[in-house]
Amino acid sequence: MIKLDYTNVLSETIGNEGLDLAQKFNEYAPKIQEIITNLNMNKDKPGTFLQWMNLGYNEETVWYVKEFASMVENRFDNVLVLGIGGSALGAKALSEALLRPYWNLLDKEKRDNFPRIFFLDNIDPDEINSLLDIIDLRKTLVNVITKSGSSAETMSQFMILKDRLYSLLGDDYRKNIVATTDKQAGVLRQLANEEGYKTFVVPDDVAGRYSVFSAVGLVPLALVGIDIDEIIRGIKIMDLGLKNTDINKNIAAQNALIHYLMDREKNKFISVLMPYSARLKYICDWYSELWAESLGKKLDLSGNVINNNPTPLKAVGVSDQHCLLQLFNEGKNDKLVTFINVDEFSTTLDIPNIFEYTNLNYLSGKTINRLMEAQINSMKVSLCDYQKPNVTIHLPKINEYYLAQLFYMLEMQTAIAAQLYNIDAFNQPAVEQAKNYLYALMGRVGYEESALELDKKINSKALNI
Amino acid sequence: MIKLDYTNVLSETIGNEGLDLAQKFNEYAPKIQEIITNLNMNKDKPGTFLQWMNLGYNEETVWYVKEFASMVENRFDNVLVLGIGGSALGAKALSEALLRPYWNLLDKEKRDNFPRIFFLDNIDPDEINSLLDIIDLRKTLVNVITKSGSSAETMSQFMILKDRLYSLLGDDYRKNIVATTDKQAGVLRQLANEEGYKTFVVPDDVAGRYSVFSAVGLVPLALVGIDIDEIIRGIKIMDLGLKNTDINKNIAAQNALIHYLMDREKNKFISVLMPYSARLKYICDWYSELWAESLGKKLDLSGNVINNNPTPLKAVGVSDQHCLLQLFNEGKNDKLVTFINVDEFSTTLDIPNIFEYTNLNYLSGKTINRLMEAQINSMKVSLCDYQKPNVTIHLPKINEYYLAQLFYMLEMQTAIAAQLYNIDAFNQPAVEQAKNYLYALMGRVGYEESALELDKKINSKALNI
Repeated sequence: MIKLDYTNVLSETIGNEGLDLAQKFNEYAPKIQEIITNLNMNKDKPGTFLQWMNLGYNEETVWYVKEFASMVENRFDNVLVLGIGGSALGAKALSEALLRPYWNLLDKEKRDNFPRIFFLDNIDPDEINSLLDIIDLRKTLVNVITKSGSSAETMSQFMILKDRLYSLLGDDYRKNIVATTDKQAGVLRQLANEEGYKTFVVPDDVAGRYSVFSAVGLVPLALVGIDIDEIIRGIKIMDLGLKNTDINKNIAAQNALIHYLMDREKNKFISVLMPYSARLKYICDWYSELWAESLGKKLDLSGNVINNNPTPLKAVGVSDQHCLLQLFNEGKNDKLVTFINVDEFSTTLDIPNIFEYTNLNYLSGKTINRLMEAQINSMKVSLCDYQKPNVTIHLPKINEYYLAQLFYMLEMQTAIAAQLYNIDAFNQPAVEQAKNYLYALMGRVGYEESALELDKKINSKALNI
Repeated sequence: MIKLDYTNVLSETIGNEGLDLAQKFNEYAPKIQEIITNLNMNKDKPGTFLQWMNLGYNEETVWYVKEFASMVENRFDNVLVLGIGGSALGAKALSEALLRPYWNLLDKEKRDNFPRIFFLDNIDPDEINSLLDIIDLRKTLVNVITKSGSSAETMSQFMILKDRLYSLLGDDYRKNIVATTDKQAGVLRQLANEEGYKTFVVPDDVAGRYSVFSAVGLVPLALVGIDIDEIIRGIKIMDLGLKNTDINKNIAAQNALIHYLMDREKNKFISVLMPYSARLKYICDWYSELWAESLGKKLDLSGNVINNNPTPLKAVGVSDQHCLLQLFNEGKNDKLVTFINVDEFSTTLDIPNIFEYTNLNYLSGKTINRLMEAQINSMKVSLCDYQKPNVTIHLPKINEYYLAQLFYMLEMQTAIAAQLYNIDAFNQPAVEQAKNYLYALMGRVGYEESALELDKKINSKALNI
């Protein structure tokens, strides 16, 4: 199991900036018990958006995903995921972590004949043009993912891909498409029905940022040979652990409470996630959306103005030590760092026994693995010297089982933190207006009023667009 | 030339959260004049660490770099850069921006026979092992970059590469190495002398984060066919512009002052850099080090404790709209966003005229380029609705000339901001102790005292490593 070590947020370790957690755990035990009980009690109620807690138990979906993956095995050289935000970041983070590094550059046999995988989660014309120039679309499976079917970015990409596939393949083009969308609503579902695409369902009552273990994430992962049964096993065991209402035994509740208290009592409102592993770098992007979009609300559940939301910050060790350590150490004491420590890397790499006659001799004959371990540990001690709080999540290995635990734990941590803040974790009320402006700027019918409003703002000369 | 638009930080645009810049520019004009005059006056003085301001005028280096690049042209399939922090991030950001997207996946002829490029700026054993498995080292030019020659990460990588090259090539291995390091000090210079590597110099009085336009950045960029003459032309024209001591005509001074005032008067101490372009994503990493390491100091130049340093935050449009817009809009008003708007992308991409009978018809027949433009504009209007300040840097195109302007402007902005904060931008006093701990943990001779200290801390049980 993954483990949480919170020694370095204790008063006895970092002095005034630390917490007396034994006392706090006692104080908050009833509250935490109530939160966890309620989450588990309400998870099947429509409208609570807690269906993500059931994604470890959806055997039917897993079965269909595996069947589909085995059906198309060896038929495609590339998987191209069209999606943005929560529709892409989970699978992007997990595939980057679980596939061999530089996957897309490996020869096919080193990929065990599984396809390369590309995520288009931006609409940069240069990037898309270049990609379309590289991949043979006839050998590419396009997985278009949007629950509503209305994401302008994803659907415009899809229109381009559909058009090109049709030119190349005629009516067979539909064999190269798999759509993951709402079970009945939206234009993508409509198109899938009309044109006969293979589809998977984005379940109701799951926010995009919580959807990684639905078909949204499982389909692309299974297509490149990732063991989704092991992922499910990881979620289940973690879900079981996190059902424990005793804060002393629930690491998600612990880290949620530590974040909440560090923010509210010690002004550490910047939550840094810092894995020491190149393969885990995109976890930060996924976590960044999870934390920001869940907790970045103006009003709490009682309608009070919050004014003081936490902000997530991405960092990757050891690289970012050379960018951020100076600020973390000497800068404003406003950050709580969550390190992810990989206890055992998949491979070992020896530093050869050369240059012993130089001052590099302390490296000769050691391993890169030991150097990595020494780096994270020296970083942690250094932060403590400067009274900067930090916790460590220990990931025994990088594999499906443990990463599923990690992702699920961070989801639960966020959900519990939201309850402590008394915030709705699962809505995103402030993104609608930007969409209206977008539609207005694109000349969409029905958005004439937004267009007029926009015109007024621009013409007042007091606004730059 | 690149341009700065600061309309959306004005009081008339965002109300109470805005600034009366006309008045502020007046008020700070003498201070800005003094800062710019001093920077230019002191740039040749040893110890001021202002030599980065001369990097546009170092014709000799540029000539040698080009000569070397043309000498090795067509000899290598891969360039492998070993470096970390400032030794890697500049060239990584610029090559990612300037090379065709997915460069390393392109066929050789689509790369005009220039090599692929890899940056190893981490020491993840899995990542390094996988890379070594992919590239043919006999056809790989290793560019090892460290001024001191003592970066444990870079030098351990180098030991591994040197050893493998030697096994493959015997004494010829040195032809596959180019070292960028101090002109005389350090173990890498010593090894280069003894073993006969081609070398370039990291100039004195240039901090790593300011070194991109020295040989540190120019060598790898030239090796993959990037036009470094155009880069130099871009720096020069920008340097000329930024010599202007009139704040009304100096965009680096303007954005520095805006950041300083927004932080000190309006509590916007999080500086978000958000390019709307997939190709510009690594600029955020480079800027993040620049801003964090330059301004993250405990003491100001008068020895007063600061306690209130700004923090940089990375974001890439349009992707991160789907992660961070909710927080930016409704969350705490603590951020100042600097957008980078690419006025004209290198290519155009049409959204085909299909699905006109659906509610996607507003996209049919438009271009992805227009959609990108509409996205950044709707984001900006939305932020203004929520009284969130933002400035926009207009980049006419993505090319060497304009990107050099952008990088140089951001360097100057940081240097000027540091003067406004009364901070030394060019040191990093708080990273040494972590290095001592690292050496202790690696058993380096001479660090026995640090090892004892560390042991004590760990054995007190009050510290987790």
